[in-house]
This record gives sequence, C-alpha cells and structure tokens, in this order.
Amino acid sequence: MTDKTNEILNFSCDYLEGADPRILMRLLDTNLMQLPGYGLDPISKSAKERIRLACACPGAEVQFLIGGTQTNRVCIDALLSPWQGVVAADTGHVSVHEAGAIEAGGHKVLTVPGENGKMTSAVLGDYLAGFFADENHDHMVFPGMVYLSQPTEFGTLYTKSELQEIRALCDQYHLALYIDGARLAYALASDENDVTLRDLASLCDVFYIGGTKCGALIGEAVVIPDPSRTSHFFTQIKQHGALLAKGRLSGIQFDELFKDDLYCSIGRTADMQAQEIQQALKSRGYELLFPSPTNQVFVVMNNARMEELQKSVVFSKWEAKGRDHTIIRFATSWATKESDVKALIGLL
Amino acid sequence: MTDKTNEILNFSCDYLEGADPRILMRLLDTNLMQLPGYGLDPISKSAKERIRLACACPGAEVQFLIGGTQTNRVCIDALLSPWQGVVAADTGHVSVHEAGAIEAGGHKVLTVPGENGKMTSAVLGDYLAGFFADENHDHMVFPGMVYLSQPTEFGTLYTKSELQEIRALCDQYHLALYIDGARLAYALASDENDVTLRDLASLCDVFYIGGTKCGALIGEAVVIPDPSRTSHFFTQIKQHGALLAKGRLSGIQFDELFKDDLYCSIGRTADMQAQEIQQALKSRGYELLFPSPTNQVFVVMNNARMEELQKSVVFSKWEAKGRDHTIIRFATSWATKESDVKALIGLL
Amino acid sequence: MTDKTNEILNFSCDYLEGADPRILMRLLDTNLMQLPGYGLDPISKSAKERIRLACACPGAEVQFLIGGTQTNRVCIDALLSPWQGVVAADTGHVSVHEAGAIEAGGHKVLTVPGENGKMTSAVLGDYLAGFFADENHDHMVFPGMVYLSQPTEFGTLYTKSELQEIRALCDQYHLALYIDGARLAYALASDENDVTLRDLASLCDVFYIGGTKCGALIGEAVVIPDPSRTSHFFTQIKQHGALLAKGRLSGIQFDELFKDDLYCSIGRTADMQAQEIQQALKSRGYELLFPSPTNQVFVVMNNARMEELQKSVVFSKWEAKGRDHTIIRFATSWATKESDVKALIGLL
Amino acid sequence: MTDKTNEILNFSCDYLEGADPRILMRLLDTNLMQLPGYGLDPISKSAKERIRLACACPGAEVQFLIGGTQTNRVCIDALLSPWQGVVAADTGHVSVHEAGAIEAGGHKVLTVPGENGKMTSAVLGDYLAGFFADENHDHMVFPGMVYLSQPTEFGTLYTKSELQEIRALCDQYHLALYIDGARLAYALASDENDVTLRDLASLCDVFYIGGTKCGALIGEAVVIPDPSRTSHFFTQIKQHGALLAKGRLSGIQFDELFKDDLYCSIGRTADMQAQEIQQALKSRGYELLFPSPTNQVFVVMNNARMEELQKSVVFSKWEAKGRDHTIIRFATSWATKESDVKALIGLL
Repeated sequence: MTDKTNEILNFSCDYLEGADPRILMRLLDTNLMQLPGYGLDPISKSAKERIRLACACPGAEVQFLIGGTQTNRVCIDALLSPWQGVVAADTGHVSVHEAGAIEAGGHKVLTVPGENGKMTSAVLGDYLAGFFADENHDHMVFPGMVYLSQPTEFGTLYTKSELQEIRALCDQYHLALYIDGARLAYALASDENDVTLRDLASLCDVFYIGGTKCGALIGEAVVIPDPSRTSHFFTQIKQHGALLAKGRLSGIQFDELFKDDLYCSIGRTADMQAQEIQQALKSRGYELLFPSPTNQVFVVMNNARMEELQKSVVFSKWEAKGRDHTIIRFATSWATKESDVKALIGLL
Repeated sequence: MTDKTNEILNFSCDYLEGADPRILMRLLDTNLMQLPGYGLDPISKSAKERIRLACACPGAEVQFLIGGTQTNRVCIDALLSPWQGVVAADTGHVSVHEAGAIEAGGHKVLTVPGENGKMTSAVLGDYLAGFFADENHDHMVFPGMVYLSQPTEFGTLYTKSELQEIRALCDQYHLALYIDGARLAYALASDENDVTLRDLASLCDVFYIGGTKCGALIGEAVVIPDPSRTSHFFTQIKQHGALLAKGRLSGIQFDELFKDDLYCSIGRTADMQAQEIQQALKSRGYELLFPSPTNQVFVVMNNARMEELQKSVVFSKWEAKGRDHTIIRFATSWATKESDVKALIGLL
Repeated sequence: MTDKTNEILNFSCDYLEGADPRILMRLLDTNLMQLPGYGLDPISKSAKERIRLACACPGAEVQFLIGGTQTNRVCIDALLSPWQGVVAADTGHVSVHEAGAIEAGGHKVLTVPGENGKMTSAVLGDYLAGFFADENHDHMVFPGMVYLSQPTEFGTLYTKSELQEIRALCDQYHLALYIDGARLAYALASDENDVTLRDLASLCDVFYIGGTKCGALIGEAVVIPDPSRTSHFFTQIKQHGALLAKGRLSGIQFDELFKDDLYCSIGRTADMQAQEIQQALKSRGYELLFPSPTNQVFVVMNNARMEELQKSVVFSKWEAKGRDHTIIRFATSWATKESDVKALIGLL
Repeated sequence: MTDKTNEILNFSCDYLEGADPRILMRLLDTNLMQLPGYGLDPISKSAKERIRLACACPGAEVQFLIGGTQTNRVCIDALLSPWQGVVAADTGHVSVHEAGAIEAGGHKVLTVPGENGKMTSAVLGDYLAGFFADENHDHMVFPGMVYLSQPTEFGTLYTKSELQEIRALCDQYHLALYIDGARLAYALASDENDVTLRDLASLCDVFYIGGTKCGALIGEAVVIPDPSRTSHFFTQIKQHGALLAKGRLSGIQFDELFKDDLYCSIGRTADMQAQEIQQALKSRGYELLFPSPTNQVFVVMNNARMEELQKSVVFSKWEAKGRDHTIIRFATSWATKESDVKALIGLL
C-alpha cells in the first residue's frame, strides 16, 4: 500500500505515527509471556510503581484507561455526585469535542470564558461566588469539580502559582480539581514549565498522564493521589467499558515511558521543534495567535497564503478570522523528523 | 523480570499472551507511517473491506471498538430506544459480568433461563408471548433486542437452524438480533459449527467479531449489515469514549486477522487442543459439565483432586457443585503450546 | 357524563376514588392563601413535623414526592453509588412494573426469589454471601441497597423480627435498607401488624409513607431518619422533575392524613372489609393464594366462575393458574362502601 | 395557623395560590366517582378532546404531566436521540434552573445568546450553519431540537413570523421544535400576541400548555400534533416517574380550564394587571428592563428604594445591575386581587 499522506509534510496533529520504538520492542519481547488480565500482571504493577515514584506519591491509585474522552468521562463520573457538574473553560475538550460524553454520564459542563485556553482564577472565583450567592442555587447544577488541561487545547501552560490559586478556590468551595494531561509530556518538557508531576499529585484530586499523544499506541494513566476520594474505581472502569482484558498493553507502554525519563525526552524534542517553527513564523512576520511554549503553534494566516501552503503541508484549520484570514495550527510530536521541520520552515 | 506464572501450566483463559506475531510485525512495519486518526486511515479501510468481503456484505458498516463490555454497551445503546431492554440468557455476559454497564446505559437486561449457556427459541417464544399478553405491559420494559453469544460463555454453539428460529421470533415481535462474538474464531473453526460469517451477516442486525480473545492485543469489529439500523454510529462511539485516536491500531490488527484466513486458523488449533483435553478427561472418567465443541472445556472435579492439580496448573474455578465437587474450566487459545497440552493431559 | 364503571361493583384497585373529604375541605379552606412554593410553606412544614412526631424521629428529613415509581427512582438514585444495584424480590414493584425507571437511573435491580411477595432473610443472606465469595465480583454490580415493600405487592406483611434480621444483614454487608410504603396505611392498621412507624424509622435508611393509595389525590412522604445518608436531596428531587411548584398540595394532604390518626383509620376500614371478603371466599370453599392481612385478597378461581362474576364485578386478573383457573385480586380502599362489600359477598 | 406572608403584598410569582375555584368544585363533585387510573378515565379523555379541539388538531396525542421541569425532561428525552442536544437561549429554563435535569437524561443543552429572553432566528441560523460547517462536528453534540418558551422567562413573546422563521431553520437542518408553555395562558391572552394554539400545533413537533402557573394545582398538558414523532410515549412517561395513578386529577383540571375559555380568561386579567403596574412604573420614571406584554414586569430599581419597598411588598430579585441597582420582577397571576394591584401602585 502506498500512503499518499506521506508524500507531503504533515503537521496536522501529534498522533500521526505509531509508538516509540522502545514500546514496540517491549511488546515483542513480552509477547508470549502468560500474564493475568485486567491490569493485575507484574508489568502493569511495575508501571504503576514507576508512576507513583515519579509523582512522589507512594499511596496513589494508578489505573490505565484507553483514550482521552473515555478517561475524562470515567474520572468525572467517579468524582462527581449526580447533582454536580464540572466547571471548564469554554474551549475545554470536555466542553466541545467529546460528543456529549460528559452529559451522557449525567453531568453538566459549566463553562466559564477561557483566556488563551486557560481558566483564570479570577473568572473562576467570580463564577463560584456568584453561584453560591444566588438564592435559587438549590434549583441549579452545583459546581463539583474544576476541569483544566495542562497544556491546554491551545498549547498554553498553567504556572504553579496559577494552579495554587485555583486549588485554593477548590478548597474554599469544596470542589475537586481534575487535570487532563493528554499532552502532559509536552508540558513537562517545556522551558517555560514550572509544574512537575509531584506538583500535580499534590494539587489535584485526580489527573491523568497522556499516552496516546505522547508516544504510546493507546493509553492514559489516571493518578488519584488520595484513593479514598473514590470508591470501587476498578468496577466503575469496568462499567464504563474502559477495562482492558489485556491490561499488559497499557502496562508495557507506561513501563517504558517511565523508564530512563523517556516520557519527558519525548516531549522535549517536539517542544524544541515547535519553537523553531514558531520562531520562523515570527521572524517572517506572521501573527501568532499567542506564543505557545509547547508542541502546538497557532498562527493567523492570510487565506491565499494558506491555500498555497496546503499544497505541500497538512495542518489543522482552527477557525476563520474575519473574511480573509484563518487561524491554523502546526503540531509536532515525539516522532516529528527534524528534516520535516526544516522543510516546513523553508516553505513558510 | 521473571514471571512466576510461566513456571506452571496455564489454561485459565484465552487472553494470556499478547498478539499473533504477524500483527506485531505489521505494527513494526507501519510504525512511522503518518496516518490520519479515528479509523479514517487506509489500513483501517482495508481491514473493513476485508471484513465486508468475508461477510459477503458489501454495504455493511464496520467499526472497530476496543473491548467486549464496551462493544456490548455501545451496540445495545445504539439499537435500543429508552423504553426497551435486551433479552439475554441468565448466563449471558451482559447479564452478570459487565458491572452494570448495560443498566448504566439505561437499559434493563431481561433474563430468560439459559440451557448450557444457550437461549432456546422455545423459552424466548414463551417469554415474548407472555409479555405482549400481559395487560400491564405498557408499565414494563419492552423487549427490544435479543442478545446471544456465539460461542456462548460455556463454549457451546448455536446451529444455523436455531438462529433462524430466533430470528423468526425477532421478526414476529420486531426485535433486533445482536450476537456477541467475543470468541467467534473458536466458533467458526469448530467441527460442529454450521454458522458462517455470511450467515451471521444475514441473520443479525448487528454482531461483532472478537479480536481480544482471538489473537489481537485489543479490539472488536462491529458489523452492521444494514447501516440504516443506526444513526450517527460514529458519534455514538465517540460519546461512549470508545473511539481510538490511533485507529490504525485496530485497523492493522484486523487487516492481518482477515488476511490468508488467519482468523479461522487461530481458532482451529485452539479448538483441536481443547478437544484433546476433553477427550482425555472423558477417557479418564471425569464428568464433563456438557461436551464443548470450542476452546473451553468444563469439567466437574472432586475437590481433593482439584487441589492436587492446582499445584501444577492454573485453571478457572467456575462454581461449587455440592460440597465435594467444583466445576472448573480449561481454556486454550491461539497461543497455547502443544507441549503444554500434552503436559496437562499427563497430569489429569 | 355518566360513568359506566359505577354501574357495577368495582374492587379493581385502591385508587379508584379521589381523596378523603377532609383533604378536599382543607384545599378549599386554604385555596387563596398566598404561600411560598417548593414545599417551603408553613402547611408543608407542619405536615413534616407531624410525620417526624409519628415516627418519633425529630431529626428526620421529610420530603413529599408525587407517585410511587418516581419516589422509588429518586430514593434509589439518591442512596446508591453508580456501581451499586438494588436487591429486590422478583415480584417487587421496582423489578417489574416501573417501565425500567430504576435502570434508566443507571442501577441494576438484582432480583432474588420472593415468597408470597416477601424476601426472606435466608434467601437474602445466601445471595449476599455468594456475591462476596465470587472471585469476579469486582466485575459485577455490587448490592448496595435492599428494597422491600410493606405491605408487599401481594398484601403480605413483614414482621418486626423479619425486618430486624434483614437489617442485620444490611449492617453486615454495608447495604442501605429502603421500604416502599405505597400502601402503608393498610399495613399499619392490620391486626397482624407489629411494625410501627417508629420501627420503620429505626430500621430503615429511607422509607416512604404512601398517600396516593391511602386516601390522598397524589403524594408520597419520603422519610430519611438520618439526613446525612444523602446530600442535597432537594436538588436531586428537582433534577428528577419531582419537585412540586405548589408544594402546598402535598403539605395539605399529609397535614390532614397525620391529624387525628386519619392515616391509620383509613387503613383500618379497608382492612376489615378485605377480611370480610376473604372470610366469605374461604367459607364458600374458594382457594386463597395465601391469607392476606391487609386490603388485597388473592384467590384462585375457576375460569367459568370468574367469567360469570365479571359481569357484575370489576377485579384484577393476576395470572393464569393452569388451563382452567386464574388468580384474581379484590382490593378494598379507604373509600370502599360497606354496601358494595355486602353485594360482592352476595355474588361469590 | 396565621400566615405572615399574607400581611404584606405578594407579587413574587404566579403560583402563590391554589387553583381556580371551578377546579376545586369539580374535584368535590367527582370525588367519589370510581374511575380507572393512569389517565384512562372519561374525564381525562374529555379534557384531551377539548385540547385537541382548541388546537384544531384532532389527531394529536395529548398527555398530562405534573410540572415544568419534568415535562421538559420527558419531552426532550422522547424526541432526541442519544447523540443529540437541545438548543436553547442562555436564559432558557432548561439551561439554568432545572438542576441538570436535561443532562441527567443524557442530553447537552446547547446555549445561544438570548435577547430579552428570546432566541432570534439570526443567532440560531448562524449557530446551525457554523456547526455543520465545522469539520469536526462528528465529534460534537448534534443539535437535534430547538427549545423556546412562550412567553419567555422574561415575559416576552415570539411573534408568529418569528416562529415561522425558526421553524424554517428546523426544517432545513432536521431539528424538532419544542415550545415550553409553562405560562401559555398569559401569552394567549396578551394584546400583543398573534400566536394561537392552532399556530403552535402547526409549528411545533411538541409543546405544552402550562397548568401549574395558570390556575391549576399541578399539571401540564403535552401536545404532540403528529404522534408518530415519538414511540411508546406512555411508557416513557411511566419510566420517568411522571405518570399519575390518579390521572383524574389532571383530567379534571384541564377539562375545566378548557371549558368556556377559562384558560384564556385566567391569563387576561393577570396580563391587564401587569400592564397597570408597568404603566405606573413607567409614568413614575422607573427604568423598565424592557416592556413586557404578559404577566411579569421587570424593572431596574435603585437599591435604597428597593429596600424601602421590600418592607411592604414581596417581589423577586432577579440580579444586580451595577453597584447601586437591582433588577426586580413583579408577577401577577390568575388570582391577583385588583385591590393588591392598586395598593402596590400606591407604594411605587
């Protein structure tokens, strides 16, 4: 089979390729081992232990789920009561691009206006104060959890102090804090990042470490620093159809990703490549939507220029900006070739 | 890492190992191809086409989901209306071992007594006639679908004429027919089987071809012979958190499984090995629960004998039979070694 | 309008008439009072206080819902976690006649065989012991609540010691106990009853006092002896569409029903009338399904005789018994006229 | 019991009193009639026939539910598929004040900015065009229904031509149109209204005629002009816990409300009284939020003035406007006394 998409440069997303070769090698090496199912095998146990160690959280519950939407739904269902909803930025993945998965689980997504993909503590604080001041709030969905993504859907990052402010609001109003780390490798590796896995474990009620977009075939690792925050989480995973019979597949992948700092190094290269592209765009006078410190670069492009570029490069069209311009996205990944980056820059 | 479970014989289930080596090789070969996500890549398209061909059903919708419980939930939710439930044998997987996934989707599992894991058309017919004769049935959950598994949870098989009788009842009472083929390879390859993929496609409203228990790492292929039976099935998959970003993973696996008749040959060896074990048990005077034509063998064993055997073999304890006996299960799989079968037989 | 159903005797159910006249008078008297909505009015508060007093449970949360199915669904949803189901006798109202309301709320009804409509502690104990002994129970719906009805759907009664045994099992296995009192007036008033409202309040996590079938137009009073067993119950009621804007309607009715012992006296007459009918049936040689101590009488009747009787009396056909007999039910109510009872007995 | 709230003027809402006296009289007159349950009685049938006649829609399915939130949830669940959401103005009742009932049923409320409580066809058209133009819309909740309220939560009215434009968009994009008529009497009776019941029946897929806020104790009448738009609606009502055993209660009320044009005359008086109050506010220089043609008047009031007024009048505080002003609401109803209106005007 010839694959036409290989003939042109492709920066459309960060899940274009398969998996980091070390993962595939491990799959081969372990293929005929007879292992118990459902994540009870020793490799999964080892992977979980590595993650606990990286988070400096020896008591954490770690579970491997399969994809981002599923993980969001399972975690939100597990931490919220039926009368509670989840507060998210209007650009949050749960707000828009999960086909109603959160509502299908019975929970309202309570949106607040985001800023470059981020929820500010000021906006959150105003929303929460307003909600509880409303005389009729017993007739309304209670905010029960804050959903953030790190990095955000726009590649931007929360600082540690921003997360601490949001955590303080969560404490004040008795909300859980949940962080979606679908692209966490690219956050951890960013020069601008000051939020470590340890910080996430100390700030969040639950968060997940993304595999699918960070070098794995599939898989997201949920971390619940204090397991008493949920009950029978394993059975809830099963009920959501999110339990792998061959749990080894997740275990093997995360065991590799958390060996020799592979997870961070995967992010580092991609971030650097994205910075190269961003720098080139800037120096050639393009208008960035805002500077991105991770692996996604958003730029405002004249439509004529964009159409020209499309002949040689695949990228994402985000949305129209006025009649003549479009916001487009270039994404790098753990697998992006340096020669492709150079070629792209040559075309800009 | 040494794996203790390898030191003794293991016949506990059919998902102990990874994947057929051809699948792993294809993963390696295609790893750096840049492919679009969500099952829209050419390999997934090829796999779907192979399945349509095998089913002689060129117009079928084929979608790849991840595991059995998830597939059952998605298919049942997609075909039933809110006021309908699914009729299943009391031993059906959806009735007992899915942690309430079907009910979490809002649907009652309406159980009828099974016979060696099978639903007879007589029992089904009586249930349906009784339901519609009940004056109060407007206050009850309507049967909207029949759920069968082929082979059943006990390894038994429906004959083509049995399925035709059940189909006739479904037509008479306007129910959908859904067949769970988690272990379908072992049915298709059985000497006693007379139900082909083509038959399933002509009898069912929806069925699935199991990958996880039949040589794949993960994955089940849903076949909807007449796609107009559902609407926006893709979005419903996404809403259930069942859509793989890297759809290539499913595509690659099923493309291999449906090349060169691999899917059937995987089942054939396992079935033959199970028959060897069954024959040995019989000839040594053990009481079979009932004869099994596929890869699972159920036998009634004296508890003392069972405990002795447990020192050298892992198997499943199904349930107690009286005070002194237990029903146990031996399962073979695509990966079972002939030497292990011989060793087991030597120990019986 | 002429009402044909008045021309013949009607013993088909206990909700044929409107409401006890004292309720209608109170509706008239209070009609133009301007009262706050949603049950926050002083009459509702008075009614709740009367119920707390009758239950000797000053700290109880009391809420008025509208009908039985709704009340079951709200209470079960409020007390169960998503991974839990409710254990009920196979003849329990939640098992069969609520159109899947419980499953629509996401919870499985886990049925055990009933005996004359009752769940025995022996059967319950076996089920619970078996569940927790099953190695795979993490893949199954956990029993989280026991559902009983008092009187049962067959008019039979639990004794206090039977309820205490079931309570002990609930304590042992950490289950909630919920009692559906749709016809509670007829239990409380029965000569054979030894379970008081105080007993229910001390044994149950939640129960309800039925209004609709016991002299009210609509309405069921939910009692939660220890309000900390739920959270934001008011908002959950609203979410289920079960909150009356004009909460006064419920308040007025229960304020009357719990004044001057009206609730019990409503049950007493009906029970006595049912005993008259039962006695007459017995003395004329009819086979009772079992003796009933409350307002429903079940009798096995020859079909020819039944068809003759149908010309003059409306009753419920329960189910066929063999080819020639049918189980039928006569129900009395707070509104049954003594002359109708005499006329019925004359016809038997 | 003395009721303190009667000592001061009360314009806080339109459900302060019980029911129109004719309804109570009919309850008394029919109280001892023995009638079948669940809405199958002749009075309910008569009421449904009156409504079909008023809507000039002889084939319509008419069902009586109990309250507004419940009715919205049942209708939305009955008309939407799982992958669809309901489009509503951000001020729509389903968006904010139903405690997540719609999401608990699995459906997202897709909000668009409202204007004085109304959704304009321009805003709706833009939203729908944008949704279907989005390349990723298969990953999003599909708009499946438009929810409007007539009058709106702010007392404003859609004109017939506005509704026709919205209907045209619904036709173009295959959406259902649902109108919440919780206060429909006040719309039908308004001088500015040009939308009749017949128009609603010809424009909507489903709408409801509100009872609770328009003179009934409880009850809303759902009208489905083309019953083939739903399936087994009766069973779905039961499943939602929305089916009254004593259906007569709804039947009696709507039979009275649709006799001798009572429903409209109830609205007329209240509308006129609201206009008197609105006129007085205007003439005394208060700033109206916008002119209201029905029974709710919204005015911006200086906080000092408001606090003074609160000593003698109960009204609703809607929301703060700046630091010094508050938007407040006065509501009249079918039961508002002319002397109270005069007294209020005297105090303004």
